Amino acid sequence: MSDLSAVKALVFDVFGTVVDWRTSLINDFTAWSKTRGIQGDWTALVDGWRGLYVGSMDEVRRHPERGYVILDVLHRRSLETLVAQLGITGLTEADLDHLTRGWHRLHPWADSVAGLTRLKSKYIIAPLSNGNVALLTNMAKFAGLPWDLVLSAELFAHYKPDPETYLGAARLLGLAPGEVMMVAAHNNDLEAAQRYGLKTAFVARPTEYGPLQSRDFNATGAWDIVADDFGGIADRLGC
Amino acid sequence: MSDLSAVKALVFDVFGTVVDWRTSLINDFTAWSKTRGIQGDWTALVDGWRGLYVGSMDEVRRHPERGYVILDVLHRRSLETLVAQLGITGLTEADLDHLTRGWHRLHPWADSVAGLTRLKSKYIIAPLSNGNVALLTNMAKFAGLPWDLVLSAELFAHYKPDPETYLGAARLLGLAPGEVMMVAAHNNDLEAAQRYGLKTAFVARPTEYGPLQSRDFNATGAWDIVADDFGGIADRLGC
Repeated sequence: MSDLSAVKALVFDVFGTVVDWRTSLINDFTAWSKTRGIQGDWTALVDGWRGLYVGSMDEVRRHPERGYVILDVLHRRSLETLVAQLGITGLTEADLDHLTRGWHRLHPWADSVAGLTRLKSKYIIAPLSNGNVALLTNMAKFAGLPWDLVLSAELFAHYKPDPETYLGAARLLGLAPGEVMMVAAHNNDLEAAQRYGLKTAFVARPTEYGPLQSRDFNATGAWDIVADDFGGIADRLGC
Repeated sequence: MSDLSAVKALVFDVFGTVVDWRTSLINDFTAWSKTRGIQGDWTALVDGWRGLYVGSMDEVRRHPERGYVILDVLHRRSLETLVAQLGITGLTEADLDHLTRGWHRLHPWADSVAGLTRLKSKYIIAPLSNGNVALLTNMAKFAGLPWDLVLSAELFAHYKPDPETYLGAARLLGLAPGEVMMVAAHNNDLEAAQRYGLKTAFVARPTEYGPLQSRDFNATGAWDIVADDFGGIADRLGC
């Protein structure tokens, strides 16, 4: 069993780990479209949108000469591609903004707020997400996430899993990497965090992708903690 | 009367505005020195330390080729100068670290936490301080400051009153400068914030510098709000 007594801060992946983006967005857009009178396959839009996520960040990574681009902007570009592909018509600029900011209005998993509140009693807690600072801040207000501070890829001008994000989080906190634990529902995020010296906690979120889920049903690495929910992480850490 | 209906976030100066650094440090060091058996004029140390503050940041500003230096490091350098000047002997490396991290252990003014809690119900609240991220995060845990996120000069590699700090805060929040209100007990901080388009709130902290206080007893500019404490700001903003 790992010695976790040096851990002083927990940093969390957010999309899928803390919040249920898929159900939140499908419900939000379905309700909104009825009042707005817009027809569309919102499930296809949401799944397609997340499908373009990794590629859109890879494009930023491949073109450093263009400068860092925040996730709100990547989301907006991907949305424009998808509404054209899916034949969703009648959307104004304000509608496209509203849909893009749907990513600021995501609901937590049932255990998230209670688990974070327990962990906050003993540790510094922060997101460490590819979402930009405004997105994560607005989401925290919307969902009641009790972060101590907001850490974001935007602060490092690098997306996860680039090392600048994990090491930058430790640096801003004034901590050694081994004093920081990354919490994620995604094994690849934890692989990177572990490679750069952070402690790791896996939480299973087997319904994140709905019927499209194909991975991350279980821990696939030697993580310091493996839990079913945030309460399990708090139990293991004695909070 | 200013129209403040566009304001979405309040950002706060911290040293002197939110926390009483002088009383906190003098009490902390006096108690610690007794258990540690170190003799020193702790009031002179604390006043001298703050006296070197602005100059130490000016030096960073004048030498961009050396890179940005966080406040913890500036504090440590100033401390070493002062303990030599004041003839305080017997301090180990660990003691110097402990004293430097005294700036992470500051107590809030009596109205701060209640006022921030009221303001948080309607606005995003964050520090916007020359303190580094770790300092502000540790202070928030110590003092129970309920920030939504931590904004710091460190994130912009510029100290206040450089424009990068005020404008950087608005940019990270995804807001226009006029949607952000700077709260400070120091007129010069508000002058800069107003110059770059932020709204401004002055709160009087007439005992910040103890018997050495020579300025900032009153508002000296056309600030949007002038209040005696954070409760007064919350009243004015309808929180």
